[in-house]
Amino acid sequence: MQPIRMGMIGGGQGAFIGAVHRHAAGLDGHYQLVCGAFSRDEANNNSTGEALNISPSRRYDSWQTMLQAELALPESERMQVVVIVTPNHLHVPISLEAIKAGFHVFCEKPAGVNFAEVKALQDVIHANNSLYGLAHTYLGYPMVWQARHMVTSGMLGNIRKVYVEYPQGWLSGEEETSNRQAQWRTDPAISGATGAMGDIGTHAFGLVEFVLNDNVTALSGELYTHVDGRRLDDDGAALIKTHKGATGVLIASQVCAGEENALKIRVYGDKGGLEWRQMEPNSVVYRPLGAPYQVFRAGQGQAGLCEEASSRCRVPAGHPEGYLEAMANLYSSFAKAVRANQKGKAEGVPGIDSGLRGMVFIDAMLASSGSDTKWESVSQEGAQA
Amino acid sequence: MQPIRMGMIGGGQGAFIGAVHRHAAGLDGHYQLVCGAFSRDEANNNSTGEALNISPSRRYDSWQTMLQAELALPESERMQVVVIVTPNHLHVPISLEAIKAGFHVFCEKPAGVNFAEVKALQDVIHANNSLYGLAHTYLGYPMVWQARHMVTSGMLGNIRKVYVEYPQGWLSGEEETSNRQAQWRTDPAISGATGAMGDIGTHAFGLVEFVLNDNVTALSGELYTHVDGRRLDDDGAALIKTHKGATGVLIASQVCAGEENALKIRVYGDKGGLEWRQMEPNSVVYRPLGAPYQVFRAGQGQAGLCEEASSRCRVPAGHPEGYLEAMANLYSSFAKAVRANQKGKAEGVPGIDSGLRGMVFIDAMLASSGSDTKWESVSQEGAQA
Amino acid sequence: MQPIRMGMIGGGQGAFIGAVHRHAAGLDGHYQLVCGAFSRDEANNNSTGEALNISPSRRYDSWQTMLQAELALPESERMQVVVIVTPNHLHVPISLEAIKAGFHVFCEKPAGVNFAEVKALQDVIHANNSLYGLAHTYLGYPMVWQARHMVTSGMLGNIRKVYVEYPQGWLSGEEETSNRQAQWRTDPAISGATGAMGDIGTHAFGLVEFVLNDNVTALSGELYTHVDGRRLDDDGAALIKTHKGATGVLIASQVCAGEENALKIRVYGDKGGLEWRQMEPNSVVYRPLGAPYQVFRAGQGQAGLCEEASSRCRVPAGHPEGYLEAMANLYSSFAKAVRANQKGKAEGVPGIDSGLRGMVFIDAMLASSGSDTKWESVSQEGAQA
Amino acid sequence: MQPIRMGMIGGGQGAFIGAVHRHAAGLDGHYQLVCGAFSRDEANNNSTGEALNISPSRRYDSWQTMLQAELALPESERMQVVVIVTPNHLHVPISLEAIKAGFHVFCEKPAGVNFAEVKALQDVIHANNSLYGLAHTYLGYPMVWQARHMVTSGMLGNIRKVYVEYPQGWLSGEEETSNRQAQWRTDPAISGATGAMGDIGTHAFGLVEFVLNDNVTALSGELYTHVDGRRLDDDGAALIKTHKGATGVLIASQVCAGEENALKIRVYGDKGGLEWRQMEPNSVVYRPLGAPYQVFRAGQGQAGLCEEASSRCRVPAGHPEGYLEAMANLYSSFAKAVRANQKGKAEGVPGIDSGLRGMVFIDAMLASSGSDTKWESVSQEGAQA
Repeated sequence: MQPIRMGMIGGGQGAFIGAVHRHAAGLDGHYQLVCGAFSRDEANNNSTGEALNISPSRRYDSWQTMLQAELALPESERMQVVVIVTPNHLHVPISLEAIKAGFHVFCEKPAGVNFAEVKALQDVIHANNSLYGLAHTYLGYPMVWQARHMVTSGMLGNIRKVYVEYPQGWLSGEEETSNRQAQWRTDPAISGATGAMGDIGTHAFGLVEFVLNDNVTALSGELYTHVDGRRLDDDGAALIKTHKGATGVLIASQVCAGEENALKIRVYGDKGGLEWRQMEPNSVVYRPLGAPYQVFRAGQGQAGLCEEASSRCRVPAGHPEGYLEAMANLYSSFAKAVRANQKGKAEGVPGIDSGLRGMVFIDAMLASSGSDTKWESVSQEGAQA
Repeated sequence: MQPIRMGMIGGGQGAFIGAVHRHAAGLDGHYQLVCGAFSRDEANNNSTGEALNISPSRRYDSWQTMLQAELALPESERMQVVVIVTPNHLHVPISLEAIKAGFHVFCEKPAGVNFAEVKALQDVIHANNSLYGLAHTYLGYPMVWQARHMVTSGMLGNIRKVYVEYPQGWLSGEEETSNRQAQWRTDPAISGATGAMGDIGTHAFGLVEFVLNDNVTALSGELYTHVDGRRLDDDGAALIKTHKGATGVLIASQVCAGEENALKIRVYGDKGGLEWRQMEPNSVVYRPLGAPYQVFRAGQGQAGLCEEASSRCRVPAGHPEGYLEAMANLYSSFAKAVRANQKGKAEGVPGIDSGLRGMVFIDAMLASSGSDTKWESVSQEGAQA
Repeated sequence: MQPIRMGMIGGGQGAFIGAVHRHAAGLDGHYQLVCGAFSRDEANNNSTGEALNISPSRRYDSWQTMLQAELALPESERMQVVVIVTPNHLHVPISLEAIKAGFHVFCEKPAGVNFAEVKALQDVIHANNSLYGLAHTYLGYPMVWQARHMVTSGMLGNIRKVYVEYPQGWLSGEEETSNRQAQWRTDPAISGATGAMGDIGTHAFGLVEFVLNDNVTALSGELYTHVDGRRLDDDGAALIKTHKGATGVLIASQVCAGEENALKIRVYGDKGGLEWRQMEPNSVVYRPLGAPYQVFRAGQGQAGLCEEASSRCRVPAGHPEGYLEAMANLYSSFAKAVRANQKGKAEGVPGIDSGLRGMVFIDAMLASSGSDTKWESVSQEGAQA
Repeated sequence: MQPIRMGMIGGGQGAFIGAVHRHAAGLDGHYQLVCGAFSRDEANNNSTGEALNISPSRRYDSWQTMLQAELALPESERMQVVVIVTPNHLHVPISLEAIKAGFHVFCEKPAGVNFAEVKALQDVIHANNSLYGLAHTYLGYPMVWQARHMVTSGMLGNIRKVYVEYPQGWLSGEEETSNRQAQWRTDPAISGATGAMGDIGTHAFGLVEFVLNDNVTALSGELYTHVDGRRLDDDGAALIKTHKGATGVLIASQVCAGEENALKIRVYGDKGGLEWRQMEPNSVVYRPLGAPYQVFRAGQGQAGLCEEASSRCRVPAGHPEGYLEAMANLYSSFAKAVRANQKGKAEGVPGIDSGLRGMVFIDAMLASSGSDTKWESVSQEGAQA
């Protein structure tokens, strides 16, 4: 089985997320990186390409050149999948061109920087029936699938409550002392109209909709900025309501000093509850009413796991798999979709609809924050039927 | 040193909280139970009194009789402190009469069932400079004092965020199948106008104000009732703001199926964060910016504890102290206050002002829930200067 | 129901364990302290007595005086139970005299300082059919009873392995800088022939025999002393074998720097395993083969608990009970035994046989340590049939 | 930078550990799999090769053929590193031939099945100054390096105690119902003379020697077999002593029903203690004497980490890295060694000396088990000066 030929846009040396994608794509051996436009800085682009064993002729000086030049190659050599790991404002422009050129796209989240452009991209993807994957990494964790299974299979009964929180602390300090990442992430021209809420609140939102297999319909929230000179929110929270009638709370903050990456979701129905935490991703706590609580554990062949969870484990229980494995699960599902010639959406991989959901969430948060009106409705664009 | 003579109103056999108060009062040996009006049921009253070694003449058939009869006794025999562990609607009527009669009062929370009656009680207490203690049990935990110390001493810097949550699951089931406690707790005539929010939300609220040494000034919340036929809320949440400028979230629910009594508070400032959990009450996690996180542990003579925390520990670290010890700390502080002839408020024990804060919180939640307006201000009645 | 009249020998101000016993006896209201010989220091004895509201005439200057004088009182006033909280070397002499005088004895562990004297005491207790309780506090924890139930009811299948460990760190420092407790605990004339192994190793050993409902028959161990000038062991470990065929490891150390009081037991059979930790005493982890693991939780009316566990809980799950509650459970069981006129052994309270087991364990450890022979048999004196 | 050309012997479809090695080698992109002798079963060998995109001409029917044929290729195409993931009894024969042929060897542990053959291999490796890496995976974890750093830098003071344990439960059941892995792992002809102790006890032993930077010099242990018909030990424990004077306990078992892969090490010195657990590998608990305990966390740029730890992290704290990442760290260090033309031992990768240490440990355990003599010395072959 030949590896899928992959190209990368962005991800030059010093960029965190590009390396994450390369680790993840490499883990299961489904991809071979054949070309890249890693950086607009020529030296960086070259040295990154060389370090990654890309032939000089396929180290491109711009993403436009890359798309064009690859198209000109014979199909058997041409890049099949383009991975986009640029700053946010380029996600849609590149995705659009790549899809029009017939490439499959795997894009770092968010899908784009505003609703309009992502909606336009959605239209193109739907029209072309193209494969487009979005790196909502946390949806690659086996035990997130297990949590969703517990909800959808009725183990919790009717869902009443959902609490999701995503506290980080890395933006607690002053803007000028923060790192390069912090700077572009808090620049509206690059990141879009929100900071923390767009960066990590969308993960929390997407996790709620995925695990509940339900859609948020309204929210009442506030955004805050705690550091002088920062131009985007670094913190916020919202009360939320879902289509099927659950209510709850969503918290996302990058000024929770000392917190690392503590995404967590809890769901309660009339028969039981569950809890999953990203920082100990291989467990789901299940609390049935009237019985001792249970801990379901990830692992190949592990008791009690649904197929969607166990098929996403590489090793037996007790051998921790983590963040890169979660993203690798997205890459492997995407590879399967490419090989199976799936259309429209890769099975098991968040797609453009998930991307659009993130945009409607951000728009609702922006509308709600500072408003005197309590509840803001969340558009059902991108929602599952 | 003679024990303080204590009487109890309520707490007949089958009533949970009366026994808790007796355990707590007994733990440090400062009190002797000398009389009681334990139950309006004569048989229960008698058997409770007998089990507790109360002489038949001091097993009273009503609280009114008890106050009168005890007053008629010589001062050296007379009850000094009356403990009130009746259903909520009697807290204020009994407290008022007891204070007017010159007794010290130690009352199970809440102070009363609405703002007006608690405000009236506050007036009387202030006018008489009487000792009145309120069983906000969680404020008796050593590590809650340590958390407050960490905030007030500046270890966290300027406080930005506070998240408090109090999930329980015991009201998840149908009303008719719930226990006796559940029934009166969800009866407005007895409990007041809120259910879960009054019962446990007030604990969460009080914990925020105590640990932050700050007052909540506004909230935006919703109350929910999930079980058919239930007449009061069993669940709710609110966004909150404090006087000093912190913002955050308060969650209280009694339908989080499978949860026990998971009160938890997290506070974040610009220099660090902390976390305390009632179910593992002997630890406070301290997360300084830019250093490994630390766990401060309760225990006599334990490193790093403030005086208020270490003086509330009876045994060395690693010998767990829990809920009854926390309440016993309130009883011991109250005993000290009685013996020292303190006036107005027992040092280290929540008083009527805390009780009034609970009422203004409930009123604000009731006003906010269902309202179209986002923010509801929280009265500063009872607030510390 | 009248409280049981209790006297205390030892426990003057500054002595840790005396206060622990008083807290524990006070918690459930079954006892009234009526007399004491708290300290050979007259001032201490008096001030302790006064603080505890003991009438001057019943503050005795020696334990001999106390036993004599109390005997001379009318039976309706006379002390019924004598609590012994002196240093170890006095446990047997006082117990013997007290039992001969007809008092019930509740003694801090160890029962004595060597096998011979404890065996002699056992003979007297058996001959008199007296009530004698030993404060193996950890056997008062509800979830230790639950663990035993899981073993004896067959939930684990045939028991194969047991690992017990008891690491503390408080003797890590130099002898001269240690506290007063450290000094007598490492003085052979007072503590007996072992230090850490006698002080806490016996707890670990007793826990194994109790939870397994089995007896250790052989061990292979070593004792160590890590601090210059210390005269007794501060650390040790042993491989162990039981009568029913389990094998395992016992660790006890007081030089595990930074550890608090981390007693823990794990048991594995051919159908499942369990784990209980003293520092989080309200949980037992149950690991059935081939299913998610479960956590059984302490609490009144809690699902899955055996009667012996649930009857030892005072409050619902999620309201932590700890060390003092565990000892209070021993006191309450002992009170029930006194009132029911039980003979020979108080139900639910470790007795002189447990005390003797501690001695045979110590003797075997002393014989094994430094020996060239691998296995040392453990006498079956005191063992259950 | 061109990838290193890698061949694999063993690892056909259905073999767990081969896939683990391929995931690990793929993660950081340093290797390209160019050939293999994956299985003696022709169909398996072919389908594995095809799935891995190995050209038919380089899917070899035996390891002997493979070594020969690769040697015949031009150096620029020839395999550089051979990965050995066969059953244990072939590790030495293949390693020997590969090294003699001039290939670098990366071998799954154990190095071999007995001391003699591994010693012979060591001689050849030393004589050839060849690169030989051994997959002691746990030594690839960043926080194991951090633990070692804490010991060697003096943060714990003089080391007194070490407790290592490795409980698994997967061999709890009957032999006939166990999986294919279980069967060869308990076959002496394939696995060597020990079962659990060789399989996982050697990991525990290696971890002790690595973290302490010290060598075990004596042990007193027992091996047990709990399942009828099983031919090798499935469980055991030992008291241990080290060259520098620490003492402790080593536990390894595969019949701890319900346990997954719970390798854990604790070390205590006169200034503090530490704890690391494989199942939560991104934390080291540090317990300094007389201060709150601290938790050091893995992650790029994380506070408090030594260089050896932080350089082994790919992502920021809070994004869990696990078992495959640990092995990938070994592969990346080995790649660096290959490219830098290191001789004799790859920096940061366990080598043949570690392999020999495992053999002397097994021999000492076998000699000790069942012996009447308490202490068995552990040969210093392979020990660091």
